[in-house]
Amino acid sequence: MKEYDVVVIGGGPAGVITAVTAKKCDGNKSVLLIREMKTSLIPCGIPYIFNTLDSVEKDIMGDKPLQANGIDLVVARVVDVDSSAKTVKTSSGSIYKFDKLVLATGSSPVKVPIEGIDMPGIYLIKKNMDYLKELREKVVASKNIVIIGGGFIGIEFADDISKMGGKNITIIEMLPHLLNVAFDDEFAIQAEEELKKQGVNVVTNARVTRFTGSGKVEKVVLANGKEIPADVVIVSIGAKPNTELAEKAGLNISKAGGIWVDEYLRTSNHDIFAVGDCAEKRDFFTRKRVPVMLASTATAEARIAGVNLFKIQVVRQNKGTIAIFSTKVGDLALAAAGLTEKRAKEEGFEVVTGVAEGVDRHPGAMPDAKPIKVKLIFSKRSGVLIGGQISGGNSIGELINLVGLAIEQGIPGCEIFTLQAGTHPKLTSAPTVYPLVIAAQNAMAKIQYLA
Amino acid sequence: MKEYDVVVIGGGPAGVITAVTAKKCDGNKSVLLIREMKTSLIPCGIPYIFNTLDSVEKDIMGDKPLQANGIDLVVARVVDVDSSAKTVKTSSGSIYKFDKLVLATGSSPVKVPIEGIDMPGIYLIKKNMDYLKELREKVVASKNIVIIGGGFIGIEFADDISKMGGKNITIIEMLPHLLNVAFDDEFAIQAEEELKKQGVNVVTNARVTRFTGSGKVEKVVLANGKEIPADVVIVSIGAKPNTELAEKAGLNISKAGGIWVDEYLRTSNHDIFAVGDCAEKRDFFTRKRVPVMLASTATAEARIAGVNLFKIQVVRQNKGTIAIFSTKVGDLALAAAGLTEKRAKEEGFEVVTGVAEGVDRHPGAMPDAKPIKVKLIFSKRSGVLIGGQISGGNSIGELINLVGLAIEQGIPGCEIFTLQAGTHPKLTSAPTVYPLVIAAQNAMAKIQYLA
Repeated sequence: MKEYDVVVIGGGPAGVITAVTAKKCDGNKSVLLIREMKTSLIPCGIPYIFNTLDSVEKDIMGDKPLQANGIDLVVARVVDVDSSAKTVKTSSGSIYKFDKLVLATGSSPVKVPIEGIDMPGIYLIKKNMDYLKELREKVVASKNIVIIGGGFIGIEFADDISKMGGKNITIIEMLPHLLNVAFDDEFAIQAEEELKKQGVNVVTNARVTRFTGSGKVEKVVLANGKEIPADVVIVSIGAKPNTELAEKAGLNISKAGGIWVDEYLRTSNHDIFAVGDCAEKRDFFTRKRVPVMLASTATAEARIAGVNLFKIQVVRQNKGTIAIFSTKVGDLALAAAGLTEKRAKEEGFEVVTGVAEGVDRHPGAMPDAKPIKVKLIFSKRSGVLIGGQISGGNSIGELINLVGLAIEQGIPGCEIFTLQAGTHPKLTSAPTVYPLVIAAQNAMAKIQYLA
Repeated sequence: MKEYDVVVIGGGPAGVITAVTAKKCDGNKSVLLIREMKTSLIPCGIPYIFNTLDSVEKDIMGDKPLQANGIDLVVARVVDVDSSAKTVKTSSGSIYKFDKLVLATGSSPVKVPIEGIDMPGIYLIKKNMDYLKELREKVVASKNIVIIGGGFIGIEFADDISKMGGKNITIIEMLPHLLNVAFDDEFAIQAEEELKKQGVNVVTNARVTRFTGSGKVEKVVLANGKEIPADVVIVSIGAKPNTELAEKAGLNISKAGGIWVDEYLRTSNHDIFAVGDCAEKRDFFTRKRVPVMLASTATAEARIAGVNLFKIQVVRQNKGTIAIFSTKVGDLALAAAGLTEKRAKEEGFEVVTGVAEGVDRHPGAMPDAKPIKVKLIFSKRSGVLIGGQISGGNSIGELINLVGLAIEQGIPGCEIFTLQAGTHPKLTSAPTVYPLVIAAQNAMAKIQYLA
């Protein structure tokens, strides 16, 4: 029986970052990472195996971070955790003793009980190399592709597969618009327009009732009776936390399904931490449990856990997720952080919004200038920024992180309005109309006139 | 004699933004903007008139912001300010009465007293359309171009002119490296390498002693005796605040040369404000007067002034300039905010730095992935971020603004280390190695081991 100071179960970003952070904080601690897959994939890169990366192999995470930091790696399936003996057991019977255990067991794709869901030709999005290779081959050989679920993963699949050319792609969403959880309608519609431009059929307000076919899927049948021809179906309607091991360890599981954790990602047993998709997430604003599964949240959690495994070294609350993320459809990048206007209102916030539209270079005559649109959502009386949405060129991938920091820090509109922002003709909007500042200004103007 | 609630003198970004902000805050106020030039240019776009924009005409600011906000415009040279009568007088004798006056009179290029500086063929960088058209024509027709001054404006001129092709360009700098005020050596050297790749001759540690030629400039002579052939010389060694009108108005002028202003950009006379290049700048960290002239600073000042002209509506200190800016040389973008490591040490700060190098997409196999390098400078004991430098692809133009907000807010390294940052394969570095976070982590690790 080998003993380790830290045992991490799970080889995704949350597991790796917790292990690396623990080792960087104290190089004398022995750290073991156990994962099930021989090869770890980069989760966010999976949609791009079809065209942009052109293969599953180019989306491999690699074990350099583990090797470089002296972290032991075992490829095995952990089948049990004994929290009194402080050991974990693998399917082959190996036992490892831990001082601190980190559960980074991730999530599994949700498979709804629709008639025919188990037919050949229907795929979930599993972070499994062989499974994805098979999916890729099927997509290459097929014409009619149906994607169920219009969240960001669904639209990224649709986007990348459409670029292979010659496919008939349909994306099906229950809500009135694609991306409707993260974006207000006006941004969601922009994403839909981009997909349509690329020839993707966008079907919203639609529910799948069954899959039909003889021996393999051939048609997707909607509640309104419409039938959509399908050689391959990709189901991306969400994921649920993997909590089996946590349950075996006797840890508290939250009602929403994740492993209960405190502000430092400690579970109900302080020698066991949980990070990433398997851990319960709370909303930054409402403290409600939310099913957010994003790399931005998972890696921030992993760093908080990694630095605080043995004692609370960095007093840093995990304030809850601001659900910050970005995506791209065709040439249009989209990004969001915090509450949408719609959700803020549903949650009972009194809000005021400001919108700015412009171009992301200056003057507008710069050769690669692209439109940019920023919407900021403020608490009306306290003036604090609670949400932001952006569409535009590639630079908005970092601009949203500026919005995110402002949200995390509770910065009021008047400080955003007088932000010192660096600008350059070839890199950003003009200083006179920097869209974050103008959106804040437009929101402030409303408060003044409406209050 | 026409009367206005607000008279702004100066049509650059600082003047326009102050006027627009004043009007947006109170649409009932009458606002007049007086400027000398018939057509306003976008200052940051001037280096790009040679190749990227291909003409001076494409760099025009336009008067839409004035028209759209109901701001009157007079094109005239103001020759006097009477602060008791509260009037300004133009060269044609027109008199305008003001309740509040805003001086946004800008800066003029420094012309050092070098022998031969007044020869034909030697140009300063004036924000004057006809002058720049002449310069552009001269550059088009010439082979040997010498640029004096290796600050960001000098390197942008060198970069854009080199892209015209067929030119022999030399850039001359007194300091050991180009961009040495804003960047530590390792970043400055990157910029030099890029320029050299484009065929530009980079001459540092060099002082110009005289210009020679018969009837027009033909050679630039250095202190070491070297002679550089020159058909056109462009001098970009800095600018000095235009304070003549402020002096006529009896306002305090700072020893460093700018118009003295308080935290709200009020001059020694509270009915007169000064914004942008003509106003004294203070350093964010040391409160020292610094000769920073950037659009980021000028527009932030203009917004603070514009909103507070009649009463202090927004209690927002102008905390001093963090001198945030970005630039581009060839394919390499460079950006900086706050103190460099070198300057921080000279100013007596005890610092710790963290560096991260990676790529700006993920996985690294993404087709347009480019190297990115981030250096963060922290106060060693207080842990607060005091400076940042970045080189990389276009996205760093916004990434530096995230660094800037963190500096303005005095955010400590441990909060940057656990930042929730949105990431996407096509837009940013990977969440596992987000460079801002890794740089903060590397700095923190040093504090832990060295303290």
